[in-house]
Amino acid sequence: MEILRVNMHERSIRREPLAGADVLLGNRGLIGKVLLKEVPPTCHPLGPENKLIIAAGPLAGTPLSSSARLSVGAKSPLTGGAKESNAGGVGGEQLALLGIRAVIVEGQPAPGEQFVLYLAPGKAELHPASDYKGLGNYALRERLAERYGARTASIAIGPAGEHLLAVAGVFVNDADGTPSRACGRGGMGAVMGSKGLKAVVVDPPAADRGKTKGIPIARPDEFRAAVRAFHGALRETPQTAVSYPRYGTAGAMATVNALGGLPTRNFSLGRFDDAERIDGDALRQLILDRGGEGKTTHSCMTNCMIRCSNVFPGPDGRAAVSPLEYESLGLLGSNLCIGDLDAIARLNYLCNDIGADVIEVGAALGVAMEAGVLGFGDAGMAAQLIETIGEATLLGRVLGQGAVTTGRVLGVTRVPSVKGQSLAAHEPRAIKGMTVTYSMSPMGGDHTAGVTVRAPVNHHSPQGQMELSRNVQVNIAAYDTLGMCMFVVPAVGQKPQLMVDVLNAAYGLELMPGFIADLGKEVIKRERAFNLAAGLTRAHDRLPDFFRQEKLPPFDLVADITEADLDRFWDPEFWGAMPQVGDS
Amino acid sequence: MEILRVNMHERSIRREPLAGADVLLGNRGLIGKVLLKEVPPTCHPLGPENKLIIAAGPLAGTPLSSSARLSVGAKSPLTGGAKESNAGGVGGEQLALLGIRAVIVEGQPAPGEQFVLYLAPGKAELHPASDYKGLGNYALRERLAERYGARTASIAIGPAGEHLLAVAGVFVNDADGTPSRACGRGGMGAVMGSKGLKAVVVDPPAADRGKTKGIPIARPDEFRAAVRAFHGALRETPQTAVSYPRYGTAGAMATVNALGGLPTRNFSLGRFDDAERIDGDALRQLILDRGGEGKTTHSCMTNCMIRCSNVFPGPDGRAAVSPLEYESLGLLGSNLCIGDLDAIARLNYLCNDIGADVIEVGAALGVAMEAGVLGFGDAGMAAQLIETIGEATLLGRVLGQGAVTTGRVLGVTRVPSVKGQSLAAHEPRAIKGMTVTYSMSPMGGDHTAGVTVRAPVNHHSPQGQMELSRNVQVNIAAYDTLGMCMFVVPAVGQKPQLMVDVLNAAYGLELMPGFIADLGKEVIKRERAFNLAAGLTRAHDRLPDFFRQEKLPPFDLVADITEADLDRFWDPEFWGAMPQVGDS
Repeated sequence: MEILRVNMHERSIRREPLAGADVLLGNRGLIGKVLLKEVPPTCHPLGPENKLIIAAGPLAGTPLSSSARLSVGAKSPLTGGAKESNAGGVGGEQLALLGIRAVIVEGQPAPGEQFVLYLAPGKAELHPASDYKGLGNYALRERLAERYGARTASIAIGPAGEHLLAVAGVFVNDADGTPSRACGRGGMGAVMGSKGLKAVVVDPPAADRGKTKGIPIARPDEFRAAVRAFHGALRETPQTAVSYPRYGTAGAMATVNALGGLPTRNFSLGRFDDAERIDGDALRQLILDRGGEGKTTHSCMTNCMIRCSNVFPGPDGRAAVSPLEYESLGLLGSNLCIGDLDAIARLNYLCNDIGADVIEVGAALGVAMEAGVLGFGDAGMAAQLIETIGEATLLGRVLGQGAVTTGRVLGVTRVPSVKGQSLAAHEPRAIKGMTVTYSMSPMGGDHTAGVTVRAPVNHHSPQGQMELSRNVQVNIAAYDTLGMCMFVVPAVGQKPQLMVDVLNAAYGLELMPGFIADLGKEVIKRERAFNLAAGLTRAHDRLPDFFRQEKLPPFDLVADITEADLDRFWDPEFWGAMPQVGDS
Repeated sequence: MEILRVNMHERSIRREPLAGADVLLGNRGLIGKVLLKEVPPTCHPLGPENKLIIAAGPLAGTPLSSSARLSVGAKSPLTGGAKESNAGGVGGEQLALLGIRAVIVEGQPAPGEQFVLYLAPGKAELHPASDYKGLGNYALRERLAERYGARTASIAIGPAGEHLLAVAGVFVNDADGTPSRACGRGGMGAVMGSKGLKAVVVDPPAADRGKTKGIPIARPDEFRAAVRAFHGALRETPQTAVSYPRYGTAGAMATVNALGGLPTRNFSLGRFDDAERIDGDALRQLILDRGGEGKTTHSCMTNCMIRCSNVFPGPDGRAAVSPLEYESLGLLGSNLCIGDLDAIARLNYLCNDIGADVIEVGAALGVAMEAGVLGFGDAGMAAQLIETIGEATLLGRVLGQGAVTTGRVLGVTRVPSVKGQSLAAHEPRAIKGMTVTYSMSPMGGDHTAGVTVRAPVNHHSPQGQMELSRNVQVNIAAYDTLGMCMFVVPAVGQKPQLMVDVLNAAYGLELMPGFIADLGKEVIKRERAFNLAAGLTRAHDRLPDFFRQEKLPPFDLVADITEADLDRFWDPEFWGAMPQVGDS
């Protein structure tokens, strides 16, 4: 396996072997390591010194379920800190099939220049891409498929990324060619735009697809057995075997709404009156009723057994958007008082097309609604405003810089964000573990850093939430680094041996189960070290004031985890010695 | 002397005696102390937990020249840290005549409510002020003078402050009633707006004017002698005796332009081709030629001997704006490639009227010009855009949040700012001491924290600049705390005995000359402690990347003071033990 270094200023491409000790390093962990070692922590996120890192994991390209997440990372224009965002789709697998663990994009071309990075066996080329300027992700994918083949993977930005807007994500296609798998959070699309890179096209030989060319398996029989055991756990766990395939992530809505933790009306209510119109049951039933191209279950990555994705059909049965997920239903739905699946699907499609994060856009629209720019529930105007982001009108640019900038410009102080990044659809006053995750994660206000709602605890009580969230965060950081989908965690999180057996067999190692937690800690510590040097401190490890000051209906909850509890998160006894900027 | 505490939520007013040890504490030092002791460092700057502190100094109301600066401070919506901004005018003197050292404004009224705080002998009242909504500073001052008397002082905000825009300053009238003395920097007007306070009107009895009712003088004969000696130094120093009265602050332009340090074309050039059309000579000559209401010299405060202010007349001889100063000429002139005094005067007047900081507005307009929103040199459009700030149109709101937000929204990475606040008209690549002042001062990118250009050093060399700037900053912090105009420093900065003699005589003390430096250090340390707790760290003690990366014509200079030199600024050996949040 190798790392490809692409310098956009020199238009040079270098290949580096993956160093021996780093053979398992992928995705989030690899990103944090490159940032800490190579990127000046105080650099401008959209300047030449930042680096965009696109990385797959050590098991991508193997038959292991859920193993080929693709991560995109950089210093974030939203948080100012280390950022990793990952998605499914076929990008991770296909990079691995070319023997590439990661692509590190450095420097900047002359203003206005734009390229496609084309990767194929023995080839790594920068192709001028000014033809693609301004294309939305769906049209872009068609054009790339025409030129480079329908079986390629594309890792691309829409107009939001080209306009360097901080809501911009990086979008990957699934096996159907739908370019809607989003590395959404943290403005990674803006960083990619600042590098003059419209897309990376990955084109492995057709014969390799589904095989394990990417990595030679050290102990094949043992590997097959380990994969079987891992898959067995996925099959035996209700969450991964039944809930996810049946309801997708939308299955969470009923639970969260019952807890009073569903962000509603710009995070001013914890329950949405129309939740039953947009929850997992409603979504599933509508897909079944409409039929057509609709699918209640769908896998975003080759070989994934969990199949939590879906294809949502419009009234005519044609695909309106794929997938429609819980966070979209929350941020573009309840948070905006929009209780209509078709309307939410339309907003989600538009976000995908302009290449924007549904969470940050939904939060920014919620703030704009609070400012009176549009009314709560006004889905038509919301759609128009998403289009203005793609067009980079002045209002589009304001919204396109995310919820914090929107609040600053429009004079709204109730902005649900931490470290400059908006919160997701888990109200931290009602699901108090999320106060810890949002506040303390080096990733900023990002639920993927550690969802706690499935833990069997009293979510309304502040007791024990710090430890709960910290353990989840450590675990997730490890799976994020191994390229595994975080949705395997309900099945294998408590049985680290399963994961370790797969790694040992694949790479000829003798790791112990403690490896997972150790790995997760190392990953988070590197991100934390980068963030500290970038100027993110204890003061940034906090929710905005209004979560402490305003009682959340219906349970009148406030954010009441003490500062002392939050500060204990970084207890050196738990983490051990911290790495430093420049460390390998 | 007492402190007045005004709670805008409860509409309550309390009087507290100034504690014995704090008898000399005023202005900047008092503000830093209140912030560190009372304001949660992570609070939202426009939320109820922030406090607005309006303070005069221990010698305000006495006949000592230049002793009645008025400071306004709070946690800044621009920097997120401790902020103090001061102005001349009659506010400081008149507060002192009422026996008030400071007014601390706490809490917030219901949204939309707006008040005038009326202070007179034995009176402190909140008067509803919804009639004054949206009034510019000039019209507001007329209305306040009608209602409360022409001899009152008003400390007020314009529409920019009402709209909570971070460019908003707090404006004080001079003895002529012109409301253009600006506590401009750091968005103090937005904080005042967030408190629902349109103006503080100070109305001491007419008989007290020019007397020293404010403070009883402990040793009158000694005080008169000390004041005479102090005044003698002002008279004997060329800067205070000749340059300032003759050319005002504009006298600096020729020097700075020759050094290649005059910000031009959004800080991309260090010399302005049309500098001779707008420098101190040109300004003086035009005022003399036009006559009428024009004045080449004018004092902003009663008793000030330096008289560096002016009244700039239009072609018809009527006052166009008062004063027209170096920083306006730089930020609204050369930085925007506007080489016309009448045009700059118009922009300055508009900024005063909407209640905005000329420096932050000029920097934001420079960024907007770089983004192509208007052309460099387009004074007509610049004037329209300043009006849009007052009207809080969307573009006005973007510009009105300052240069950093403007750059973020418009996609410009070359934003001359530190800690979120724009730099003033001293290019830090050419006047390298300003790299240190801008980078390290707890005040953010603020020249008033320590101007180094008058020091007899090679300004193009990085050598010794850290020590130079640090000493100037410490000295300035002391004078800022004593309510003294920083323009006395050229005359008395090297002779601290002069200042100490005045204080000893006035308050019956036996201070030693070292008091000045000790005081300055204490003041800066408190601000630093607040900032650290607010999340401002070493990473924020830096210029933006482009100052290091881009060579500044005509001398091809870059910012090259090493990080190690900058870090030495906070050497504990120099500063001693740091105070903590909550300390008195």
